[in-house]
Amino acid sequence: MTTLYNDPAEFAEEQLAGFVDLYADRLRGVPGGVISHRGPEPVVAVVVGGGSGHYPAFAGLVGPGFAAGAVVGNIFTSPSATQVYSVAKAADQGRGVILTFGNYAGDVMNFGIAAERLRQEGIDTRIVLVTDDVASSPDRDERRGIAGDFVVFKALGAAAAAGADIDEVERVGRAANDATRTFGVAFSGCTMPGAHDPLFVVPDRHMGVGLGIHGEPGIRDASLVPARDLARMLLDGILADRPDTAGERVAVIVNGLGTTKYEELFLLWHEIRQLLDGAGLVPVEPEVGELVTSLDMGGCSLTLTWLDDELESTWRADAYAPGYRKHRAAIKELRPAVIGDSSDGETTAPKPSAAATRIAPLVATGLRELQDVLGTHEDELGRIDAIAGDGDHGRGMVKGADAAVRATQPLDAAGPGWLLRSAGRAWAAEAGGTSGVLWGAGLEAAGSALGDTADRYDAADAARAVDAFVHAVLELGQAQVGDKTLIDAAVPFRETLRAALADGEPLDVAWRSAADAAKDAAAATAPLAPKKGRARPLADKSIGTPDAGATSFALVVDALSALQTPHPLAERNAR
Amino acid sequence: MTTLYNDPAEFAEEQLAGFVDLYADRLRGVPGGVISHRGPEPVVAVVVGGGSGHYPAFAGLVGPGFAAGAVVGNIFTSPSATQVYSVAKAADQGRGVILTFGNYAGDVMNFGIAAERLRQEGIDTRIVLVTDDVASSPDRDERRGIAGDFVVFKALGAAAAAGADIDEVERVGRAANDATRTFGVAFSGCTMPGAHDPLFVVPDRHMGVGLGIHGEPGIRDASLVPARDLARMLLDGILADRPDTAGERVAVIVNGLGTTKYEELFLLWHEIRQLLDGAGLVPVEPEVGELVTSLDMGGCSLTLTWLDDELESTWRADAYAPGYRKHRAAIKELRPAVIGDSSDGETTAPKPSAAATRIAPLVATGLRELQDVLGTHEDELGRIDAIAGDGDHGRGMVKGADAAVRATQPLDAAGPGWLLRSAGRAWAAEAGGTSGVLWGAGLEAAGSALGDTADRYDAADAARAVDAFVHAVLELGQAQVGDKTLIDAAVPFRETLRAALADGEPLDVAWRSAADAAKDAAAATAPLAPKKGRARPLADKSIGTPDAGATSFALVVDALSALQTPHPLAERNAR
Repeated sequence: MTTLYNDPAEFAEEQLAGFVDLYADRLRGVPGGVISHRGPEPVVAVVVGGGSGHYPAFAGLVGPGFAAGAVVGNIFTSPSATQVYSVAKAADQGRGVILTFGNYAGDVMNFGIAAERLRQEGIDTRIVLVTDDVASSPDRDERRGIAGDFVVFKALGAAAAAGADIDEVERVGRAANDATRTFGVAFSGCTMPGAHDPLFVVPDRHMGVGLGIHGEPGIRDASLVPARDLARMLLDGILADRPDTAGERVAVIVNGLGTTKYEELFLLWHEIRQLLDGAGLVPVEPEVGELVTSLDMGGCSLTLTWLDDELESTWRADAYAPGYRKHRAAIKELRPAVIGDSSDGETTAPKPSAAATRIAPLVATGLRELQDVLGTHEDELGRIDAIAGDGDHGRGMVKGADAAVRATQPLDAAGPGWLLRSAGRAWAAEAGGTSGVLWGAGLEAAGSALGDTADRYDAADAARAVDAFVHAVLELGQAQVGDKTLIDAAVPFRETLRAALADGEPLDVAWRSAADAAKDAAAATAPLAPKKGRARPLADKSIGTPDAGATSFALVVDALSALQTPHPLAERNAR
Repeated sequence: MTTLYNDPAEFAEEQLAGFVDLYADRLRGVPGGVISHRGPEPVVAVVVGGGSGHYPAFAGLVGPGFAAGAVVGNIFTSPSATQVYSVAKAADQGRGVILTFGNYAGDVMNFGIAAERLRQEGIDTRIVLVTDDVASSPDRDERRGIAGDFVVFKALGAAAAAGADIDEVERVGRAANDATRTFGVAFSGCTMPGAHDPLFVVPDRHMGVGLGIHGEPGIRDASLVPARDLARMLLDGILADRPDTAGERVAVIVNGLGTTKYEELFLLWHEIRQLLDGAGLVPVEPEVGELVTSLDMGGCSLTLTWLDDELESTWRADAYAPGYRKHRAAIKELRPAVIGDSSDGETTAPKPSAAATRIAPLVATGLRELQDVLGTHEDELGRIDAIAGDGDHGRGMVKGADAAVRATQPLDAAGPGWLLRSAGRAWAAEAGGTSGVLWGAGLEAAGSALGDTADRYDAADAARAVDAFVHAVLELGQAQVGDKTLIDAAVPFRETLRAALADGEPLDVAWRSAADAAKDAAAATAPLAPKKGRARPLADKSIGTPDAGATSFALVVDALSALQTPHPLAERNAR
């Protein structure tokens, strides 16, 4: 959804006014677009352009080492010939003008008309079209320009900045386009300012293969695939059209269209990198990010440019534009730090007593029960947490439990204390977050309470472990009963267990009562307003929903009650 | 929608692996996060952190002039104490460590535990909390950290890079936090990798006021407002909590949460800038972009930091991190270009004949009819165009028609030729795009055909004007009948008009027949595959839908047929 505007019809102009104000120290607005302030020596003026909605393309690419000017059309719409003429004339520094843009009919017409006018006035004007989209046509000359724009514009800008004449700059730009291939996919459409619905819709769990960057749907729909399969599909699409003269070195762009975020693009790069290695290709200074966008469209593309020495030098060259900045000197002096082992913690299990060895499998089974019940309720816990929190409680608990189970296998020669301490450390390390650190500390404390050296383990040990768990959580979390945290379930659990055991109930019965008390207490948090944690600023929204942490605690102790029947600690000691 | 992943549970790790590979020339991965390669002189290690999903926060802020290390938790989840310890220990250069992060319970616990461990090992460790979110609590110490993270981290990084000792760096960081206020709104929720639904939903045409950056909903819902009203609301929210010592100079961040794009943020800046001027505040090197994101969430925030000389110098300082790069020397030598008038075209209306003066109001009325009919059908034309195009046809036509009408008012002493030429130039200049340039050229040609000096105007002149329009469009567009363009309607229109006039029909009858022929011809484009323009790569999708350009042409000539009854050209000449 494009949300921020006043009058949709004025969107392109108003955003440009903001951009020009923001970067008034390095560029200026002219009728039709922007031009860079000038350096000490005149250069061939590389003028890029097209519609708005592609930031940093096109106005964000104006600056030293990049474009001298950008023509700014309305959203997804070619600028007019008058706009092109105006910007190019203002950008001209007496060494000629290169007009460069993606191959679209409207742009070809408007830039073409402007080029004629400029030539009539004696300004040497060349046109370099970008035609990188392999999906758009089998015929290279018919292809659209998409993220490959960036490579071609940068090659032109770098050649111009190096002082080359217009023939040379044009030649380098054409070479860059000849060596560049892009293939992309769309995950979701973009919405024009003022519109309510996106320009196209990708069916659920699908992607549009062969994306356009103006709200065009993909050329065909396909099922959504994991990132590693997508990486292969994109690379295969490009390699099928590898240029004849292709060597090993490639400039690479993994481009995000707008809504597909940097983290996702990094993950995709992780996959693409391995495939490039496998294909014998050497990536040179890859760029992963949003370089040619399409408003709030979801999607990504892969661009490869096969590099010779000349194109490698234009690709590596510094540039300083609002939307793209490269300054290699800033990192040239840096050296990798030599660091020692920064891990901490216990790494060897102490030798357990015979009783500890007997009880250990029960702890391991308990952790697996806990893992099961959290996995089953992951989505529910996430939903509860999302009411007034960040919705990560289910995921965090499952991640912690998974880590705890992994850390406690194999069981070779370990006792219950070591198992729970290992489980707690792994939980805290993997789950992160508030609940992660609290559960981790709680389990670690429970493990320390049990130890590995006792001659026998009985119901009192279970109670001591529970005490230690709750004590650790209280200490670390600094929460009290009524603050709407897991404490609201954990304290009643502990109290009920203590009281029932003191009354002489067997552990299985006592545990069952305590688990019921925890369940009731968790449900009773619904009307409360949270006093701790991320939910606090959203206290009003939270009212009416039970606390996610109290709920997951109640679920876990309920699941563990199955293990206590018939009083397995006692039973195992008796074997 | 978060779309690119393999196993959702491994998202954070896999994206980090891609990031570390990408920037291996300047940073390295360590257990729990990343650390910067080191410069020649050791500095106080500023270690930032928190959950993943906020890029460029937090790993993207590691580099010279910024952070020495970043702890990387799972998505929206605090990293564990073990992770914090590991990264901080690796980042330490012997001058101490500053741990800095937003004020969230999980982070406070985990960073706090790690700080204790580091101190126990003799590493001087300080904590600087960020508490900038004015919406999250009236009590400053209770507030969350959101986009203000960026200012505080940068102040710390700049002070450390300048060689300050740990007391000094800590002091500057605390001063930056004390001077920083942020207020934001959410437009849409974000979706965790693997999840199908967003963590929260903002009701249609609403926004969540007081956003969180971990998928928390806003603190309250409000109706969506135009950008200029939102700008005022954000600024007022901050000014209501202006620090006591506030002067005139402010660092400003307009931050996008992920899906809200740069163009929208520039537009918002345009509004905020004017309000700052009105409030007597002087923005210093404002940053407008994505600095602290929340996956694919929609929303934005405004951050102000009141600057004294010290904070101004840390704010202005260079930095070179993967996600933020500033290098003022790159633009220091630039000077604004001195440019002349780069506009072109006719600016004075030629003196019209008496007949031309009489006919001019009819042309003006025709343009308004055309404007009306296009306005009425704007959405429909957009929908047709979106099937296989970019959906901008309705908008572009309306924009062109609006410009044409504006350009031809007032009519003082103008003839029909000048009016149509002015209309055409304005249309092409404002509408842009393929249809814009074609309609502009067509109207301009029609105007030249009519001229302003004839002694009388009759039906033959109307036919010549139509001929000239169609000829110009054919010449410029290089399309033929059957290519599925506006030509498919324009040529039958011209032929039918010619034939009917040759048969002796009056203009109104002939025009009506021609308009009907155009309508039929436009409808008959539905089964065709496009051979020109942006729709070509999507030829298969286009089949079954009529061409948008042919449809709008038919609508216009149909609307103009009303004007021709009863033969107004003849009638006016007869007056």
